[in-house]
Amino acid sequence: MTIEQNDRLILLTNDDGLYASGLKTLMEVMEEFGKVVLVSTLESMSGMSQALTVKTPLRVKLLEETDRRRVYACNGTPTDSIKLAVNQLLERMPDWVVSGINHGANASVSVLYSGTMAAAIEGCLYGIDSVGFSLNDFSRNADFSVCRKYIRLVMQKLSSHSLPKGICLNVNIPSVPENEIKGIMICRQAKGNWKEEFEKRKDPMGKTYYWLTGMFQNQEPDAVDTDEWALANGYVSVVPVSVDMTAHWYISSLKEQFSE
Amino acid sequence: MTIEQNDRLILLTNDDGLYASGLKTLMEVMEEFGKVVLVSTLESMSGMSQALTVKTPLRVKLLEETDRRRVYACNGTPTDSIKLAVNQLLERMPDWVVSGINHGANASVSVLYSGTMAAAIEGCLYGIDSVGFSLNDFSRNADFSVCRKYIRLVMQKLSSHSLPKGICLNVNIPSVPENEIKGIMICRQAKGNWKEEFEKRKDPMGKTYYWLTGMFQNQEPDAVDTDEWALANGYVSVVPVSVDMTAHWYISSLKEQFSE
Repeated sequence: MTIEQNDRLILLTNDDGLYASGLKTLMEVMEEFGKVVLVSTLESMSGMSQALTVKTPLRVKLLEETDRRRVYACNGTPTDSIKLAVNQLLERMPDWVVSGINHGANASVSVLYSGTMAAAIEGCLYGIDSVGFSLNDFSRNADFSVCRKYIRLVMQKLSSHSLPKGICLNVNIPSVPENEIKGIMICRQAKGNWKEEFEKRKDPMGKTYYWLTGMFQNQEPDAVDTDEWALANGYVSVVPVSVDMTAHWYISSLKEQFSE
Repeated sequence: MTIEQNDRLILLTNDDGLYASGLKTLMEVMEEFGKVVLVSTLESMSGMSQALTVKTPLRVKLLEETDRRRVYACNGTPTDSIKLAVNQLLERMPDWVVSGINHGANASVSVLYSGTMAAAIEGCLYGIDSVGFSLNDFSRNADFSVCRKYIRLVMQKLSSHSLPKGICLNVNIPSVPENEIKGIMICRQAKGNWKEEFEKRKDPMGKTYYWLTGMFQNQEPDAVDTDEWALANGYVSVVPVSVDMTAHWYISSLKEQFSE
């Protein structure tokens, strides 16, 4: 694949691994928009957040190349994949970083744990227009076809409106038949947390171990401007995510406290 | 150790492992404030961000117990440590989650990659007053004694002013002699990014591998209200960090774009 200056170059990754069907769908839609370089892992990297691989060396292998796409496997996290691509694999900066489609929603505080969204955030830190897509269905036989229409819509908007520096998009798609989706809702991250987060077991030696599990609890189920509300009510949620985590509104109160 | 209702219960962790000298200093200062439960790993977990362990079982071992402290080793990330403590190890919710002292600063966008700050963010998601401390010195023989005074000062403020829901503190301490520290500065996260992020090598089989490395680049070195400026000018930086990553100010623009 040769990348010409006027080609749109799209860097693609996910956190469910190269064989995930959500990634296949996203790849197909992205090929309508430009030339695609895919860098991801063979295994799932769910829940890896913005983690970096610092203790083991990273390796990359070119698996496939056509005139429209290039596919690399690497052994790092989604964030490593984006860093490797931008610094070592690509001839020039990509125009877009697109991540997903995640098996399972990344609404509310899941944005903090999500490898899918971490890849979009990483792209955003490089100043690249970046989007993460997730389908609200954790099952391995989830139907991603419903996502195509809304991925196209979001990326068409992005074609005409570049994002401001330091902002990427978190797009979650409800798992309902396409004709039941009511449209796109621009919203904010819902306040929420996880409960009953471990399953305690005994191994064959009688020693205790724990599996991470748990249930999400929406702390504001009645608020109609959140991503959780949008998903629960048949809308595609689009949240602008800021890489600046400063709680700007609280700076003046802190200054007062510390000057006492 | 028995935990009475009127004891201040402090949950402590870090991402440099149980033998890090930054953790030792923080433990000593925290014991002045209350009863301490420490949960951390034997090995370093630097750069793990908010990562969760979902593919391997978690194990915990009680290493030490006195009338003032309890020390557990676990095999998870800093986020796992906080979740395990809150859900499985503690008799009741802790009053504070305190993390660090990290070997190396976690200013600017490092907050996104830091395991130390992830632990504080996790505490914050549970509604607990949470703080992450870092010293701007990566070396293993860093002198953490300079931190004591400022850790005390921050925690004294926290004793009288609880944090709002959804906000924790990111405290970075400059690596200069104590008499050269000019005081505490409440500030915002500086805009920045990393450059030249990999070292490319050949293994003995002739195969290429990469080590993550890189240099931080401050995109706004002249702005005087950032954590990077504070550190570079001899101040302790205190940034209020929000778990809500929504770029609220950009919602109306996005709504307009999507209604076109």
